Amino acid sequence: MGSDAPSHRTRVKRLPKRARYDAETIHRILDEGLVCHVGFVADGQPVVMPTAYARDGERLLLHGSSASRLLRAIAGGVEICVTVTQVDGLVLARSAFHHSMNYRSVVIFGRGRAIEDPAEKMDAVRRFIEHLIPGRWKDAREPDAAEMKATLVVEIPIAESSAKMRSGPPVDDDADYALRHWAGVLPFSLVPGEPVPDERLPEGIDLPDYLERYTRRR
Amino acid sequence: MGSDAPSHRTRVKRLPKRARYDAETIHRILDEGLVCHVGFVADGQPVVMPTAYARDGERLLLHGSSASRLLRAIAGGVEICVTVTQVDGLVLARSAFHHSMNYRSVVIFGRGRAIEDPAEKMDAVRRFIEHLIPGRWKDAREPDAAEMKATLVVEIPIAESSAKMRSGPPVDDDADYALRHWAGVLPFSLVPGEPVPDERLPEGIDLPDYLERYTRRR
Repeated sequence: MGSDAPSHRTRVKRLPKRARYDAETIHRILDEGLVCHVGFVADGQPVVMPTAYARDGERLLLHGSSASRLLRAIAGGVEICVTVTQVDGLVLARSAFHHSMNYRSVVIFGRGRAIEDPAEKMDAVRRFIEHLIPGRWKDAREPDAAEMKATLVVEIPIAESSAKMRSGPPVDDDADYALRHWAGVLPFSLVPGEPVPDERLPEGIDLPDYLERYTRRR
Repeated sequence: MGSDAPSHRTRVKRLPKRARYDAETIHRILDEGLVCHVGFVADGQPVVMPTAYARDGERLLLHGSSASRLLRAIAGGVEICVTVTQVDGLVLARSAFHHSMNYRSVVIFGRGRAIEDPAEKMDAVRRFIEHLIPGRWKDAREPDAAEMKATLVVEIPIAESSAKMRSGPPVDDDADYALRHWAGVLPFSLVPGEPVPDERLPEGIDLPDYLERYTRRR
């Protein structure tokens, strides 16, 4: 904990006691999240874009249009930084200063490469769908050749990564525990609501099982 | 819509019909979000970090420890990119290819500067608390001089920004509407749960009104 950073740049500098470097922690955060934020440098300028992703073992997979500037840059091998963040709660301390957030985040540094092999690429596309909605892949029309051609898929090794997290109650200065302010945690979670059927859905197509029992946490 | 980008780099290149450049849309997304992802370049390498923020009119405010590498870099005037993303739902199309996400995001390009004036800095700190928990500032101990010194606050003009969003049902190819796959939207929202009082909270301190009626959407 705090001492096994895979590289200098992944070592958590601020509040190192919040850092984790084990694959299990990192994978769990990645598997729960819906979007990542990808940073790259374009003409010397940092650019941060949200996008969907999936994980395949020790690889992070990203995809998008073959015309996407972001995806083309990654396929071209530029350095990127991918960050996934879950907000778990607001931490209300007695002092304004010690207010905080409970969260779990993963930061990955690396370079990507395009996945060209048709079978490997199709498997990656399946993983994007299954990452968001487990069970969905078999209940949707598979991509055809033109759609696969219009899609760029890249992989980034997760190797150079770190997790950072905070959980639990506020930590106040000793003297402040005597203050009469409410203190505690307001939990937050990203939760699914009631599925909204498409207006053009024909009669007789029930809500599938994988949506009935949908839950984000796995 | 799609035509009033304040600069070349803020112009949304992919799917420009999803772009908005009006302040009202941009402010509403910023005011609802809890964390932003800040990108900057360190030794030629993009770095993306999640952090809390607040908005004051046409300025975005960030804060952190005076020792924070991120905050010091921003105070030093490096180019940054700040992205705020809300996930609103998963879009299940009949085809795997047309699966999508409903979301709202804002991307801001610019350079920050440190806020040094004590009154202005204290007002910014108040805004961080009020951004997360409206009504909380008056129910917490105000920062003292040492805490203010340990805090770095920076402002970034929101001027060079854009919003991008998708909402509504899936859009499938005409032929695919005949398929017997369920289609629609699985809505998502980041929602507060039941407040968890600190174990060290004395008897007789009730849950404050501003938490009883807490809601993220404003």
